[in-house]
Amino acid sequence: MKVRQVGEFGLIDIIKDNTLVDPSSVVAGIGDDTAVLKHPSGKLLLATTDMMIENIHFIISGDNGRQIGYRVMAANVSDIASMGGRPTHAIISIGVHPDMEVSFVESVYEGMKACSRDYGVNIVGGDTVTSPDNLVLNVALLGLVDPDKYLPRSGARPGDLVMVTNVLGDSRAGLDIVLGRCSISQEGEKYLLDRHYYSNPRVEEMAAGTACGGITAADDISDGLGSEIHEIADASGVGAILKFEDLPVSDYTREVAEKTNTDLIEYCLFGGEDFEVVITVDPRKADALAEAVESATGTKLTVVGEIVDKSEGVKLLRNNSLHVLPKKGYSHFKK
Amino acid sequence: MKVRQVGEFGLIDIIKDNTLVDPSSVVAGIGDDTAVLKHPSGKLLLATTDMMIENIHFIISGDNGRQIGYRVMAANVSDIASMGGRPTHAIISIGVHPDMEVSFVESVYEGMKACSRDYGVNIVGGDTVTSPDNLVLNVALLGLVDPDKYLPRSGARPGDLVMVTNVLGDSRAGLDIVLGRCSISQEGEKYLLDRHYYSNPRVEEMAAGTACGGITAADDISDGLGSEIHEIADASGVGAILKFEDLPVSDYTREVAEKTNTDLIEYCLFGGEDFEVVITVDPRKADALAEAVESATGTKLTVVGEIVDKSEGVKLLRNNSLHVLPKKGYSHFKK
Repeated sequence: MKVRQVGEFGLIDIIKDNTLVDPSSVVAGIGDDTAVLKHPSGKLLLATTDMMIENIHFIISGDNGRQIGYRVMAANVSDIASMGGRPTHAIISIGVHPDMEVSFVESVYEGMKACSRDYGVNIVGGDTVTSPDNLVLNVALLGLVDPDKYLPRSGARPGDLVMVTNVLGDSRAGLDIVLGRCSISQEGEKYLLDRHYYSNPRVEEMAAGTACGGITAADDISDGLGSEIHEIADASGVGAILKFEDLPVSDYTREVAEKTNTDLIEYCLFGGEDFEVVITVDPRKADALAEAVESATGTKLTVVGEIVDKSEGVKLLRNNSLHVLPKKGYSHFKK
Repeated sequence: MKVRQVGEFGLIDIIKDNTLVDPSSVVAGIGDDTAVLKHPSGKLLLATTDMMIENIHFIISGDNGRQIGYRVMAANVSDIASMGGRPTHAIISIGVHPDMEVSFVESVYEGMKACSRDYGVNIVGGDTVTSPDNLVLNVALLGLVDPDKYLPRSGARPGDLVMVTNVLGDSRAGLDIVLGRCSISQEGEKYLLDRHYYSNPRVEEMAAGTACGGITAADDISDGLGSEIHEIADASGVGAILKFEDLPVSDYTREVAEKTNTDLIEYCLFGGEDFEVVITVDPRKADALAEAVESATGTKLTVVGEIVDKSEGVKLLRNNSLHVLPKKGYSHFKK
């Protein structure tokens, strides 16, 4: 059987057993984006990793090394942020073809360093090896979180509201601009390219949110809200209903969806790499939470649905009718 | 300028600046194999990473997935061991072509899990992505060490003895067997293949050694003793004289060197991936240390040279004459 036949999550299922020799030190192991480990300080140590490979996760085109570097670090920072934590230390592996220009590698590192400075990350080591062809980047990132602020995926309860930070779909719309699928105003294109290349992992938003209280589960939106809401529902043993008309979308992304003649749902539910955060929230705390996060960071929280009983499944309310929300989103190995 | 023109260490020099936003948390950052971070427990947190890419670090041939997996984990364990630490938690990234057999990926993980069990490592997470062609493996490994047992590369002093664990060159000799460059007895081939595929990172040896005391600097032998002794000399600001006739070499490796008509020096000084450890030792403690390590683990320590003043450089004594020891060993990008 080939890897493409079992898919990313099937492969993880096959390899995830018998991985712990000392379970007492591990709060959460394989299965979440970020491992959660006991730490003698009383805090929890977070550890996450993301690998990005040329021609799968990015294309080298002209002078875009800085963007590539920023994005791989930001993807890791976002994983730490979604657990309620703060990133601290990164180690970076890079596989480079010997004929690559040194200046391009430097620009990739400049991007990783810029993101690290933006989010308080120390780059403390790594490995530098030859790649026979494609550029390979791997970041492993550590972070810390207070045990009472740690946000697993598994805490959502029926009655909780589903909220997201900022807007959804910009990164996918920015990709359409990169690929020349349509063009919009110069200002709009600049906005979307910036959102595609330089995401804003929600570290401060989650810090303000956990300080306020009321968040029951969280996940960062790396594969699309349509995928992440399934992850929360599966981990928590609940269902969810999202309301299409309430999903926050920028005017520029609406314009791109219209011009490319694509259902907006492909952007705001199934477009990857927005690196916004989806949270489930005690409904009595939702207003105070939104106010606390916006006043601390300027970032809006929007209610986009609610958590329901597991028996109701995961659904999308659109034009007053309920649809089953497919478990779709970016998944490796399969289309 | 191309990466091949600056080489691995030149590239690291170019990218290593401006990487720390909070130096107070970092004992050792980029430049050693393993980062050393302050840890509220009073211990030091160690973090290391190694990337291995198909057709550079390994060749897929038949059913060798388990060996490949064991080796990448062992390389990381060896880095932690050489700092005097114990490994604790690993996160693994894997880039796989969709047409790879699931059973092969499973066997790679079986190897990583076997090594993890052997050395007390919990595998707690990772990332699973598509690779457009070559298999890519990255392990990031955490560990802990007591501050008074932490062994940097930089502590060697003139007058210290240079000692190594076990024997040198077996891994390179095993590679000759793999590549069919010569053949020896079945028993000899089995020994060398085992040493090539299943190295023995020296965690327990270093634990016994640091408990005994007297070690002033350490490094694991991943690129060959000829390279590692330069790293210790550079970091410590000293010179070193190695004695060729004292280097411990197995009879099987001697036999392979003879049959392939290759200078033994290529095996015991410039052959990579033995994952033995080189240490520098206070001469008054050397005998007690060797006895403590051998009685705890069965592994012999051998004196192979001494640390001298920086002005004397790094040299090899062979047939009663001193030769400059070239800064040679496996280095990426360059031949």
